Amino acid sequence: MTINLGIDTALFEYICQSVENTPFYKMMGIYLTALGPGEAEIQLKATPQHTNPLGLLHGGVLMSIADAAMGNAIRSLGIKGVTADCSTSFIASASLYGLLQAKGKVVKAGKRLVFARAEVFSNGQMVADVKGTFANVGTIDPGEKSDQHG
Amino acid sequence: MTINLGIDTALFEYICQSVENTPFYKMMGIYLTALGPGEAEIQLKATPQHTNPLGLLHGGVLMSIADAAMGNAIRSLGIKGVTADCSTSFIASASLYGLLQAKGKVVKAGKRLVFARAEVFSNGQMVADVKGTFANVGTIDPGEKSDQHG
Amino acid sequence: MTINLGIDTALFEYICQSVENTPFYKMMGIYLTALGPGEAEIQLKATPQHTNPLGLLHGGVLMSIADAAMGNAIRSLGIKGVTADCSTSFIASASLYGLLQAKGKVVKAGKRLVFARAEVFSNGQMVADVKGTFANVGTIDPGEKSDQHG
Amino acid sequence: MTINLGIDTALFEYICQSVENTPFYKMMGIYLTALGPGEAEIQLKATPQHTNPLGLLHGGVLMSIADAAMGNAIRSLGIKGVTADCSTSFIASASLYGLLQAKGKVVKAGKRLVFARAEVFSNGQMVADVKGTFANVGTIDPGEKSDQHG
Repeated sequence: MTINLGIDTALFEYICQSVENTPFYKMMGIYLTALGPGEAEIQLKATPQHTNPLGLLHGGVLMSIADAAMGNAIRSLGIKGVTADCSTSFIASASLYGLLQAKGKVVKAGKRLVFARAEVFSNGQMVADVKGTFANVGTIDPGEKSDQHG
Repeated sequence: MTINLGIDTALFEYICQSVENTPFYKMMGIYLTALGPGEAEIQLKATPQHTNPLGLLHGGVLMSIADAAMGNAIRSLGIKGVTADCSTSFIASASLYGLLQAKGKVVKAGKRLVFARAEVFSNGQMVADVKGTFANVGTIDPGEKSDQHG
Repeated sequence: MTINLGIDTALFEYICQSVENTPFYKMMGIYLTALGPGEAEIQLKATPQHTNPLGLLHGGVLMSIADAAMGNAIRSLGIKGVTADCSTSFIASASLYGLLQAKGKVVKAGKRLVFARAEVFSNGQMVADVKGTFANVGTIDPGEKSDQHG
Repeated sequence: MTINLGIDTALFEYICQSVENTPFYKMMGIYLTALGPGEAEIQLKATPQHTNPLGLLHGGVLMSIADAAMGNAIRSLGIKGVTADCSTSFIASASLYGLLQAKGKVVKAGKRLVFARAEVFSNGQMVADVKGTFANVGTIDPGEKSDQHG
């Protein structure tokens, strides 16, 4: 169940459906919990398959969920964004147990480029600080065939 | 089958085994094709589950394989590296079809920090330019229980 | 005149003096306006020598002031930090006219690494979003000869 | 004296002149030593005013010279590039003494975005590994009034 924090209903439904239908999100277990104007919250229930034998989540999992949070925060503004750059700082180890959350936020939406940030939390503790730059490749038409970048 | 480009046999076997046993690598389909002093080559056969409906590989897949290539390039020097920062530039779209390759290389191995780079290729075309900074957290003892960061 | 937002007086005086004595800061016109636990605010009065003929501040000026804001935010915790990585997103053009401000903040201070962020403002408008990773190379002794990294 | 490694003479003269006329470059002591198709080499003679009391060059100097090397490598292709992102890894300390060199290279020149890299050397030793993403904002007309981004 995704919470709508105030965006157009048609756009909201379009994004929710496109996230549910993204194969990579299904494989990773990524789902969308909240969507507002310029912000998105993504979650993932950690499982042993996300980890290495140290019992820690792999960095690729954190980068993937952060990219998804930023990409959908951008889509909440009706913008199709394609990731150009993604910079992640791993500030703490993420535990295997509990929930992984990523909160994405648009910092600046320009005609050419859109700048975003994401913070990733493991059991409520911040574990990754992420900055992303996206190419603005057009506007989303909720009527058209789903596109789910990010 | 992983090619040994010139590192100690015990260390080589240790790394190959640890990569094969990493759950996240299994889920992603990541495997190690070559390992030399300060360099590693990783591959992944793209499948529909790595993609979004546009038929393009998800950015998270590219960041994961690049992190793996850099992490194992560092381990080839007998160093345990933990990713501190990873910055990825998506210079071209990666196709669903064909092979995804990541070549990781150590730029500077310091006592505190290890700096690495990776280039990701889709069908031989470079699609991502990656830079990573890792904390040097100790030396690998091929005799000990496997650790598979990266 | 630098405002002390709550750090030890000896440390505060030490940092203020070291910033005043840093040759590169003098050349750039960088000065410290506020220092609190884990945060620092730096300013620079833009002059034509900071610009290119388009009347815009050079990117190097923004990266320098952001690095200075993060470095001094870290020193406010009594930590000597050496920049390992600095990632800057130029979200808008900075005007030649008016004041350039950088607000640095420590996100996580670890034993090995310290993670920080900075935001740069031109006339109150955010123009750069910055993320930095620093090596923690020791604690500051306000009694010793001044060191002014950052 | 700048070496022309094979670009159009009018464009070469235009870029050389614009670099000489950039106030920030003059203040920093930055000059262009070589320009080829998609590559640029910049130098700076370190002086005490670039340093902190530790006798090391300030990080801002390295980021500025790297940004200049990437920006001019892009201009050598006749493209006006505006820095969107710049990520610098400080792999070693740069000495006050001797020459600072930055070699910039275009990795991919797209219609929307141009990706570049730079390596900075102090006395021939690599001290910084840099990656930059630039917005492609148009083509250079060597006849028009000089623009010197980067």
